Amino acid sequence: MTKLRLGTIGTSMITEQFVEAAKASGDYTYQGVYSRHIKKANSFKDRYGAAKAYDDFEAFLSDDAIDVIYVASPNSLHFSQAKEAIMHGKHAIVEKPMITSLSQWTELIDLAKEKGVIVVEAARHIFEPNFVKLTEVIQGFEGIYGASLVYAKYSSRFDNVLAGQEPPIFSTKFGGGAVNDLGIYTVYAALRWFGKPESVHAFSQKISTGVDGKGIVILRYPDYDVTIRYGKIITALASSEVYGLGKTLVLDAITGVEKAELVDARTRERKTIELDEPSENPLIWEAKAFADVMKNPDKEESKEKLNDWLSLSHDVHEVLETIRQQS
Amino acid sequence: MTKLRLGTIGTSMITEQFVEAAKASGDYTYQGVYSRHIKKANSFKDRYGAAKAYDDFEAFLSDDAIDVIYVASPNSLHFSQAKEAIMHGKHAIVEKPMITSLSQWTELIDLAKEKGVIVVEAARHIFEPNFVKLTEVIQGFEGIYGASLVYAKYSSRFDNVLAGQEPPIFSTKFGGGAVNDLGIYTVYAALRWFGKPESVHAFSQKISTGVDGKGIVILRYPDYDVTIRYGKIITALASSEVYGLGKTLVLDAITGVEKAELVDARTRERKTIELDEPSENPLIWEAKAFADVMKNPDKEESKEKLNDWLSLSHDVHEVLETIRQQS
Repeated sequence: MTKLRLGTIGTSMITEQFVEAAKASGDYTYQGVYSRHIKKANSFKDRYGAAKAYDDFEAFLSDDAIDVIYVASPNSLHFSQAKEAIMHGKHAIVEKPMITSLSQWTELIDLAKEKGVIVVEAARHIFEPNFVKLTEVIQGFEGIYGASLVYAKYSSRFDNVLAGQEPPIFSTKFGGGAVNDLGIYTVYAALRWFGKPESVHAFSQKISTGVDGKGIVILRYPDYDVTIRYGKIITALASSEVYGLGKTLVLDAITGVEKAELVDARTRERKTIELDEPSENPLIWEAKAFADVMKNPDKEESKEKLNDWLSLSHDVHEVLETIRQQS
Repeated sequence: MTKLRLGTIGTSMITEQFVEAAKASGDYTYQGVYSRHIKKANSFKDRYGAAKAYDDFEAFLSDDAIDVIYVASPNSLHFSQAKEAIMHGKHAIVEKPMITSLSQWTELIDLAKEKGVIVVEAARHIFEPNFVKLTEVIQGFEGIYGASLVYAKYSSRFDNVLAGQEPPIFSTKFGGGAVNDLGIYTVYAALRWFGKPESVHAFSQKISTGVDGKGIVILRYPDYDVTIRYGKIITALASSEVYGLGKTLVLDAITGVEKAELVDARTRERKTIELDEPSENPLIWEAKAFADVMKNPDKEESKEKLNDWLSLSHDVHEVLETIRQQS
């Protein structure tokens, strides 16, 4: 198989970005667009050069010329649509959060195994070369004394909430809220860097629509604690930090890191960590990584990668489940 | 009474700083130095121009020419020494933490009332003009969406701990540890800015000596949460932040704030808040404030101030007690 033939669900910005990344990667051709509205599907098809546009979901799923489906609908639909894709023998790349309850995770992965296809969760940052580099830096630390990871960005949609509306990203019906949208990035980072915590202690702040507008979670490890903070009703400017023995790794962000420094805890002397220039399209790395595994599913390396991604995804959703239960 | 006649317990850096502040304020004369070692007491007396040096605690306390005693011994001695000072009819300025259990707080305040003297806790930052200014800024916020307050600074004494020693600031015997030393500043700030929390959730990280080396505490308020983080075994570079509706107050520190910005949560546009130049001696403000009240104890304004300080101190120690209990 030279190129994967891509189908997409959703016509929002993230889909545009993924389609562009997929094309730029050289690993995909663009076969089909699905939207509930044929006008939207057609316009998207024309803009991004897809072969076909669909408003009939069953017809879209049955298109034999599609190998893999990228699912970027509202969060609450990810699971059922990914499931449908898998049932139809397609690989599935599912935007985070892939599922909204842990039982769905198992169901989806088991189904994919049964159908002989691959399902992955698109948590883009863990594929970024700079993130991978920082992971190596952290793994090289002599001792870990904890971390504080932050991703909180005011959403203009919160203005709508304040005006009495309920946009999808702030709606329980659509699986909205801060932990699903931004918190998940910090959980992914924490678990990639420190593994699965011993216990999880969540403090969520609900807004009028019933979703969490922001949250603070303590992840307890045997020897240290990691604080994660996230929010869509506030903007945090504070750096994210990982504390080692006598040094602090200071990051300007959790996704798309552009600046990283190692600071001497005693002298406060700062040393810049050389990072790659930010890529024009940050989804390029996941698009490449997924294609690589989906094109060569039987390679030992592919199996190892997939296991690693899924194991991480599982642990992340276990933590998210606990956060939801405590909210 | 034109000037307060000062006696001091302790000969460490903080005592030097307070004595210099007291002299610079013009509100004190320096009467007596107490140290267990007469050599240290004499040397301190000569350096700072005190009238007398003592190694006999009872004689020091009985010096009729002393009006007020500044207590800056190891934390575990603050309470008993302040109590002795009060029993001898002296006012007491007690370094934070004034006490190490809440019952001591009540005992000390009741005793001071009974003896007709004043006891105050030296939490220097709440007297700093810049802190007061920021308090007004926060009180002017339309809504509060939480805060993240940080004070974590690696102590060179932790090197000694790593080498197998037990310096007082990391010793349970001396009331050492991170929350007693630095955490208390963040608790003071949180309670000054947001009042008493509904509940307190503490996550402390103990070190080999048995004290907390760092900690994270969630203070829950009806509508929002405040995270405080502190530590003496790590250095945090992250800003402290207060989240308002559509804006974030970004601070470079909790004590001795030198830089404060109001950042638009939507546009990230930054507006600098004009602050006073940092004072040469940051204890000058508390030295002045305490003298003012102690010189005019019967003024209505003095009574109000004292009530305010003590009420805040009480609530702070109630929170600290909870943190200790959960550790």
